[in-house]
Amino acid sequence: MSTMKAVQVIGYHHDLQMAEVAKPEVVQPYDVIVRVGGAGVCRTDLHILEGQWEQKSGVALPYTIGHENAGWVDAIGSAVTNVAVGDKVIVHPLITCGLCRACRSGDDVHCEQSAFPGIDTHGGYAEYLKTSARSVVRIADALEPADVAALADAGLTAYHAAAKAARTLGPADRCVVIGAGGLGHIGIQVLKALTASELIVIDRSAAALELASALGADHTVIADGSHVEAVLRLTGGVGAEAVIDFVGEGGSTSDGVKMLRPAGDYYVVGYGENIDVPTIDIISAEINFIGNLVGSYTDLTELMVLAARGLVTLHTVKYPLDEFQQAIDDLNAGRVRGRAILVP
Amino acid sequence: MSTMKAVQVIGYHHDLQMAEVAKPEVVQPYDVIVRVGGAGVCRTDLHILEGQWEQKSGVALPYTIGHENAGWVDAIGSAVTNVAVGDKVIVHPLITCGLCRACRSGDDVHCEQSAFPGIDTHGGYAEYLKTSARSVVRIADALEPADVAALADAGLTAYHAAAKAARTLGPADRCVVIGAGGLGHIGIQVLKALTASELIVIDRSAAALELASALGADHTVIADGSHVEAVLRLTGGVGAEAVIDFVGEGGSTSDGVKMLRPAGDYYVVGYGENIDVPTIDIISAEINFIGNLVGSYTDLTELMVLAARGLVTLHTVKYPLDEFQQAIDDLNAGRVRGRAILVP
Amino acid sequence: MSTMKAVQVIGYHHDLQMAEVAKPEVVQPYDVIVRVGGAGVCRTDLHILEGQWEQKSGVALPYTIGHENAGWVDAIGSAVTNVAVGDKVIVHPLITCGLCRACRSGDDVHCEQSAFPGIDTHGGYAEYLKTSARSVVRIADALEPADVAALADAGLTAYHAAAKAARTLGPADRCVVIGAGGLGHIGIQVLKALTASELIVIDRSAAALELASALGADHTVIADGSHVEAVLRLTGGVGAEAVIDFVGEGGSTSDGVKMLRPAGDYYVVGYGENIDVPTIDIISAEINFIGNLVGSYTDLTELMVLAARGLVTLHTVKYPLDEFQQAIDDLNAGRVRGRAILVP
Amino acid sequence: MSTMKAVQVIGYHHDLQMAEVAKPEVVQPYDVIVRVGGAGVCRTDLHILEGQWEQKSGVALPYTIGHENAGWVDAIGSAVTNVAVGDKVIVHPLITCGLCRACRSGDDVHCEQSAFPGIDTHGGYAEYLKTSARSVVRIADALEPADVAALADAGLTAYHAAAKAARTLGPADRCVVIGAGGLGHIGIQVLKALTASELIVIDRSAAALELASALGADHTVIADGSHVEAVLRLTGGVGAEAVIDFVGEGGSTSDGVKMLRPAGDYYVVGYGENIDVPTIDIISAEINFIGNLVGSYTDLTELMVLAARGLVTLHTVKYPLDEFQQAIDDLNAGRVRGRAILVP
Repeated sequence: MSTMKAVQVIGYHHDLQMAEVAKPEVVQPYDVIVRVGGAGVCRTDLHILEGQWEQKSGVALPYTIGHENAGWVDAIGSAVTNVAVGDKVIVHPLITCGLCRACRSGDDVHCEQSAFPGIDTHGGYAEYLKTSARSVVRIADALEPADVAALADAGLTAYHAAAKAARTLGPADRCVVIGAGGLGHIGIQVLKALTASELIVIDRSAAALELASALGADHTVIADGSHVEAVLRLTGGVGAEAVIDFVGEGGSTSDGVKMLRPAGDYYVVGYGENIDVPTIDIISAEINFIGNLVGSYTDLTELMVLAARGLVTLHTVKYPLDEFQQAIDDLNAGRVRGRAILVP
Repeated sequence: MSTMKAVQVIGYHHDLQMAEVAKPEVVQPYDVIVRVGGAGVCRTDLHILEGQWEQKSGVALPYTIGHENAGWVDAIGSAVTNVAVGDKVIVHPLITCGLCRACRSGDDVHCEQSAFPGIDTHGGYAEYLKTSARSVVRIADALEPADVAALADAGLTAYHAAAKAARTLGPADRCVVIGAGGLGHIGIQVLKALTASELIVIDRSAAALELASALGADHTVIADGSHVEAVLRLTGGVGAEAVIDFVGEGGSTSDGVKMLRPAGDYYVVGYGENIDVPTIDIISAEINFIGNLVGSYTDLTELMVLAARGLVTLHTVKYPLDEFQQAIDDLNAGRVRGRAILVP
Repeated sequence: MSTMKAVQVIGYHHDLQMAEVAKPEVVQPYDVIVRVGGAGVCRTDLHILEGQWEQKSGVALPYTIGHENAGWVDAIGSAVTNVAVGDKVIVHPLITCGLCRACRSGDDVHCEQSAFPGIDTHGGYAEYLKTSARSVVRIADALEPADVAALADAGLTAYHAAAKAARTLGPADRCVVIGAGGLGHIGIQVLKALTASELIVIDRSAAALELASALGADHTVIADGSHVEAVLRLTGGVGAEAVIDFVGEGGSTSDGVKMLRPAGDYYVVGYGENIDVPTIDIISAEINFIGNLVGSYTDLTELMVLAARGLVTLHTVKYPLDEFQQAIDDLNAGRVRGRAILVP
Repeated sequence: MSTMKAVQVIGYHHDLQMAEVAKPEVVQPYDVIVRVGGAGVCRTDLHILEGQWEQKSGVALPYTIGHENAGWVDAIGSAVTNVAVGDKVIVHPLITCGLCRACRSGDDVHCEQSAFPGIDTHGGYAEYLKTSARSVVRIADALEPADVAALADAGLTAYHAAAKAARTLGPADRCVVIGAGGLGHIGIQVLKALTASELIVIDRSAAALELASALGADHTVIADGSHVEAVLRLTGGVGAEAVIDFVGEGGSTSDGVKMLRPAGDYYVVGYGENIDVPTIDIISAEINFIGNLVGSYTDLTELMVLAARGLVTLHTVKYPLDEFQQAIDDLNAGRVRGRAILVP
């Protein structure tokens, strides 16, 4: 039995630890083993270490974390027809059954029996990762796994929300994007690619707004307490047809709702606080609140098309796998610009 | 100048009063004068008298109330082509401009400069009502104005929400209806007409549930504290694809959300309390909250088709216009089964 | 190795022949072996014998025909989780890959590498049939395989077209159904279940129209040469919002287009002749022609819900498997009312 | 009574003639008089002179032609609230009633009693044009009437078809555009603005393809007899998800259908020949043919947003109104690059 290096959770409120573990092997016919080319370091990983996911995931320790992965196909099961050994792939974060009602209608994110590598089973802070044929998307020759790994989860979530909004946004509509950070700056690029709507981007950081402008935002608004008024001014006093909220905390939602015009759509992506709105306001303005989770496999396929054309890019900082602790520390301290990526 | 009888608000926290006022006349080219055949007595009328709408409407007193009207066309302006004198019509509650962006896309309810007879201008507790060509829908010969008047607002709201839900409800989906009262029992009939989904109806009243069953509900659940569990049991433990909440107060929404499956839609119709839900629940279950106001002119046209075929009926109690106080008192005391209708 | 009885094509322009062949066995992880409870005898089976499918299917003779099947699960592969041995199931006509772009978006009918038992591999005129976990739908206890088998293909096609049309048909719309035969009478039932539109049914046979009326058609029109005028009369001179053409030959399409109002949708289901329409007519009336193939797995799931509630039923004539020749002869001679079903 | 110059049809197969006619005046409350700033010279105008529209329009001669107009509001009726005197406007080609079922649902192009200035009533080859409040769209300060006039009809038709296609085209889809001429080159710009799909443009003219590339086409294909093969090669052998056919004659449609993948959509915009396709091909590939007429008022509003942002531009050649014959002759002789515009 061959072994590999893997970074594991060995206890909550405890540092991650590098270990030598068994290399995953093909057992089931749809198994795919991916040689990891890049594994994104996500804020959720910090939350896992803080024990926030202990109950939810019920995962047995020790286990390998890392849920944003890309690499090369290393081995495939007997029934796999969509990828071949050597293919460059990005890995959808969920392993889905393919047989339940949700899977059969293309809505695989709501699979009734999915697994989530890096959360409830072994993930990608390692040399190899076991996933499924249903979870691998081939990427263009011009893309490198370590460059796109962070699109597997953070980017996919932003794509999902932005693409959903784009379905109803016409050229005469205005879309407010709250938060131009990790997810938000992907969302802006997706909106620019998929719609001709006017984009108004709000953030507390001037640097983030500068990036937003460079990515095509039509207007930027600093979140300094007068941002609701600013948006109303930019929308003729009536508010925007859509608000995509990548923040979801710190008063974001109550401000955001005030920026929405009658019959508008509020896309909830970031989370933290409660949506707390009188039903009379919901019905009299006839507004909608739209939840958004990570995107489907098909969403990931589409996002990879945008990435291959250079329409969606993200800034990454790469660390050798051995320097995982440095990456974690940098993220924790707010020293990472863009996304930290572990490269085995 | 000819005159007519009209029941007017002459002060808040004061009884309505019958008055002899000028009969409305055609002035603008799209004006339509309707001889009132029935005017629904609505709980909103009680709220008006309590002063709840004083600020919102800004209407000058005295004025004639009544926003649920049907009757016969009495006179038309020079540009009116869709109805003729003598036509039996139901009156859409809003007078809309026809020129703003919302009106031009068929979404006339969000007209940027609408008037609302009975709320912010003279309404239908009278012998005649002035409205617009854009607000009158001819009804089938077999229907009588006094029988359908209550469909103009209460029924139209229920239709709008139920028809919106029906657009995404397939035969394998389950729809929970919270509240089988005035709006709810119309909603049930509309859902039965427009969809093959399984209907689960919840109410506190056994009599209301009996009516729901008679109207086609597949399951009824008494709201006795165990209703959330009952719905989960009826939906294989996962909840329903849609919840239409005609109540919106008394804990209805927090219970209702628990009955919703992942990716489900929560239709807010009734109002009173707040929607107060953690954003993490909205995104992790990826659920939506859909606001619902009164229906459009086109919605009313469709509702009248269902009424003409006998697919939507409602129980009414008729009072001569002179007995308006009795109707108000009966409604206030909960003595009206179905809808009270004033007949001039 | 155990054997079973199977009815096989041994040559084109040659009678089918009963044979003793190897019973199919589970090989792949998603294989499902179904003990056949009923196999529909379809006009396509006659066309196969006439050699019309020889080129298209490229199937090697001898092989077992029969593409409308239902029965009981007899054995399952190691990865099958959606059915268990003993379950009553109906069999979707296609075996699809689950990995291609079409499959991943819920559109499995356009799978890039599907197999079609009874057409290009062994089918269901036999005691046992091999299919896939992706192709079996559990049916309600109250349904019997032999009663629903014909819904697997003919019924599923009708459901697919009618459900697609229902998505845009409101209560004020009129839908013309051309042909109230095998597919058409299912389509009528589906339309009644899913929509409140007015149904106008056309057929050459008075008996078929009588059945249509019994199933809920609002108007029936005998196809006697004056049927276009009759439909125009029933639709205020302007035509219907939708025409669903279950015939597609004998002049059906040129008549049908004349029954369509501007902006209307023409659903092509039956086939034989060409759609031959001037582009100027297509653009000036802005009409659409919508192709319809068999329904998806999800469609079949929904159709089974309607069948379980008794909302879709069909007339069947059962024959023991040994009397396959009689069934074929009866179908060929037009002696089958409803659908002939072989029962092993 | 004041008079004005107008170019009129005085007989079929006869040259247009300049005349001094009564200046149009406000009569009805929704009338709007526009001082013409630019009137597009369209191939349809040639067809009118050839008598092709004589029967269809039934217009009484002499009358003023010109159906692509923009200018400044000169006078408004008493009920007009959406424009003011002096506003720069583009004129939707139809005057619609606002009361019929189509108008009420936002589909004003299918108005049951519309008028068509330049076709069945006086048009815009004149100093002033009478239209309706429902037909005027204010344009941005930066746009000039003579520059955008041709977007009123030709551009609006292209927008309508491209925007309809964009609603279902995702980033992984391919869209074939047949014809990069007058309409096609607008369509390409609209598709680039509204979708991230890959665009494959086909034309017989190398110059047209050069323009297409400059406007953002991802691939261009010369229509030299091998274009079907070229498209199949560019789409992995399976064809494109959508074909937008701006030609519709000379074999365009039979070639175009071969470029369509299963479940694809064929948008018919150009016209001349017949769509002539076996129903078996329509159902087995499950393809759709989608008719396209001119866009709605809302479409025109959106197109003007794109024009204001510089996302849609067109090449024009301006002629003083007096030189109308030269413009007609140049168009007839194929000497106009882009669109000829008469400027009063």
